[in-house]
Amino acid sequence: MKKHVIIVAGGKGLRMGGDIPKQFLPIGGKPVLMRTIEAFYSYDPSIHIILVLPLAQQAYWKHLCETYHFVLPHDIADGGETRFHSVKNGLALVGGEGLVGVHDGVRPFVSRQVIAGCYDTARQRHAVIPVIDVVETVRHLTGVGSETVPRNNYKLVQTPQVFDVQLLKDAYRQEYTDAFTDDASVVEAMGKEVWLVEGNRENIKLTTPFDLKIAEVLI
Amino acid sequence: MKKHVIIVAGGKGLRMGGDIPKQFLPIGGKPVLMRTIEAFYSYDPSIHIILVLPLAQQAYWKHLCETYHFVLPHDIADGGETRFHSVKNGLALVGGEGLVGVHDGVRPFVSRQVIAGCYDTARQRHAVIPVIDVVETVRHLTGVGSETVPRNNYKLVQTPQVFDVQLLKDAYRQEYTDAFTDDASVVEAMGKEVWLVEGNRENIKLTTPFDLKIAEVLI
Repeated sequence: MKKHVIIVAGGKGLRMGGDIPKQFLPIGGKPVLMRTIEAFYSYDPSIHIILVLPLAQQAYWKHLCETYHFVLPHDIADGGETRFHSVKNGLALVGGEGLVGVHDGVRPFVSRQVIAGCYDTARQRHAVIPVIDVVETVRHLTGVGSETVPRNNYKLVQTPQVFDVQLLKDAYRQEYTDAFTDDASVVEAMGKEVWLVEGNRENIKLTTPFDLKIAEVLI
Repeated sequence: MKKHVIIVAGGKGLRMGGDIPKQFLPIGGKPVLMRTIEAFYSYDPSIHIILVLPLAQQAYWKHLCETYHFVLPHDIADGGETRFHSVKNGLALVGGEGLVGVHDGVRPFVSRQVIAGCYDTARQRHAVIPVIDVVETVRHLTGVGSETVPRNNYKLVQTPQVFDVQLLKDAYRQEYTDAFTDDASVVEAMGKEVWLVEGNRENIKLTTPFDLKIAEVLI
């Protein structure tokens, strides 16, 4: 079954305090985004990789690829106004069949086992997302105050989120709302169920300087 | 106003895969628990520090203190069957007035600012806990399936949780239930409100080998 992955790298990098978007920052001597692409390529060299990048960053990315002699095959789609629009642009480059994953460009530490688990399970379940337990106590803000809620009833969602290609294309034809925080929520808005598999704790989203420090250890 | 802190170190360390409970493992060449105690001592050298340790670990702790020439003043209370019972044992060593914080022994990276914020706010608010934003998408398990919930409505809870001494003593006179996952939930079971302040992201709970790797970077 044909496999695709849309790697979304829309980050403006503002939270890092520098001018270079965080997906381009080097960890262990190599830009984050190259490590993310390598994770999927090493899972399956025949996977179709689509990188979604803001138009303004594409020349820089090509320059980086030359500098680092990075030659893994990938298509490039233009980033959109929101993550929803970016994924939609990526989906336009996906053929009509098989499975498509959507993955955050700044999650280079997804394990091979988690990638395989998501794609394998999606053959049967059509919509699969990796989740991990919440270690901390969770509070729910009620509007007038807050309350402790049982943390065993909550999970933290990672990527890749993997779907039937046709299912995800149908889902992304819906009108955008800001309740679409991830791909699962877009699919669920059509009344479809999403299947959960276990993620890996190291699969963190690199969003702050603290995360980058952690990344240097994980390399 | 008199300040106390109960540092709870009940961990059996089973998750680390070794024989040494995680609170005793060295980070940056010094046991976790010593770094945690130092954080409160350096915030206020006059704070009354109570360390709650399983009886079976107390001799080892004393040996460690000698080995590391660790001389910061602290009382020791016996660990109980659950965290609730451990805190209750610690509270027995707290005098009748002032403010008392309860802190996880395996959170050595709490910032001075967060400790100060919790104690300062507790003078006015009587029950204060530090929380941080949830970075990931959050899913709620409904029993029959799961649903995406707005992450902005949720917070992750850290320690120290700081209370009026009398309020916390009253709360811990209630009968134990397994809904008591932290001190805030014990206080709330009496119908009291808890005030939220901002925690610091580095204030992680060291519970897995992965966390210990992160800890080495943070030192």
